[in-house]
Amino acid sequence: MRLAENEARARLVAHDHGILCTVHPERGVDAVPVVYVVDDGGYVCVPVDRVKPKGTTRLQRERNLETDPRGALLVEHWDRDDWSQLWWVRAELRWQEDATDRAPAFAARLAERFPQYRDQPFAQLLLLRILGVIGWAAAG
Amino acid sequence: MRLAENEARARLVAHDHGILCTVHPERGVDAVPVVYVVDDGGYVCVPVDRVKPKGTTRLQRERNLETDPRGALLVEHWDRDDWSQLWWVRAELRWQEDATDRAPAFAARLAERFPQYRDQPFAQLLLLRILGVIGWAAAG
Repeated sequence: MRLAENEARARLVAHDHGILCTVHPERGVDAVPVVYVVDDGGYVCVPVDRVKPKGTTRLQRERNLETDPRGALLVEHWDRDDWSQLWWVRAELRWQEDATDRAPAFAARLAERFPQYRDQPFAQLLLLRILGVIGWAAAG
Repeated sequence: MRLAENEARARLVAHDHGILCTVHPERGVDAVPVVYVVDDGGYVCVPVDRVKPKGTTRLQRERNLETDPRGALLVEHWDRDDWSQLWWVRAELRWQEDATDRAPAFAARLAERFPQYRDQPFAQLLLLRILGVIGWAAAG
C-alpha cells in the first residue's frame, strides 16, 4: 500500500538506480535509465557520463529540462515470481541550473558508489531538487 | 549505441516489465512500474490489476491518459557491475480508448505469461498503440 513520505524518501536515498522522466515538447514524456545519488540537502544528482557510450554529447534529457524543469525519478524493486515483494518510489523533481556548488560533493559520492567512475569520470552532472517523494509497496 | 528499430522492437516484444510514463497536468510526468504484453498488431497492453493492491480503484495513469493520450514505456536491463551489458528500449505510445476488441486476446496472453493472473484476474486493461520504438545498448 501507499508508503509514508519518510519511508519512501529512505528508499530513494538507499538506492542509486532508476528511471529519469522529463517532459518532451512533442512526445509528452521521455524516460531513460540513470544512476543517481541523493544528498542531505534534498537534491538528486544524475551523472551524464562517458562510460556508457552515447550517440551524441548533448542529450535530449538536458534539452527537455532546459525547456521544462519538471522531472520525476522512479525507483523500483521488481520480482517476477513473488509480487508480495514489489515496491516503488517516485520523486518529483525540479532541475536546478544554479546548483553547481553542490557538484564537487556529488562527484565524490558518485565515485565512491560506482567504481566505474573512478577511472573514467562523467562528463556532466544534472542536479535536481526533490519536491516530494511518494511510494507504494505490496507488503505494508 | 543506438539500436535499429527492428532490434529495439524485438526486445520490447520479448520482455514484459517496464515503466509506463504518462503526462500529468501539474507534475509534468508520471511514471509507474507495469507488466505488459505486445501483440502482432502494434499494441501494448497494460493490465490494471487487483493482485498488487492499490490505494484507489481509479488510477492516476488512467486519468492522465484520458486528458492526454501520449505515453511511453521504458524497458531496460540493469547490471550494477558490468555496464557493458546495459540496454534499454522505449516505445512511444498513444492510448486507444476504442481498442477494446483486442482485450480478450490480450487477457489470454497475460494469463499465459503471468501465473499470478490465473486465479485473480486484472480489473481492467489499458491498450496503447505503438508509434515507434527506439533503443540503446552499451555493446553494439
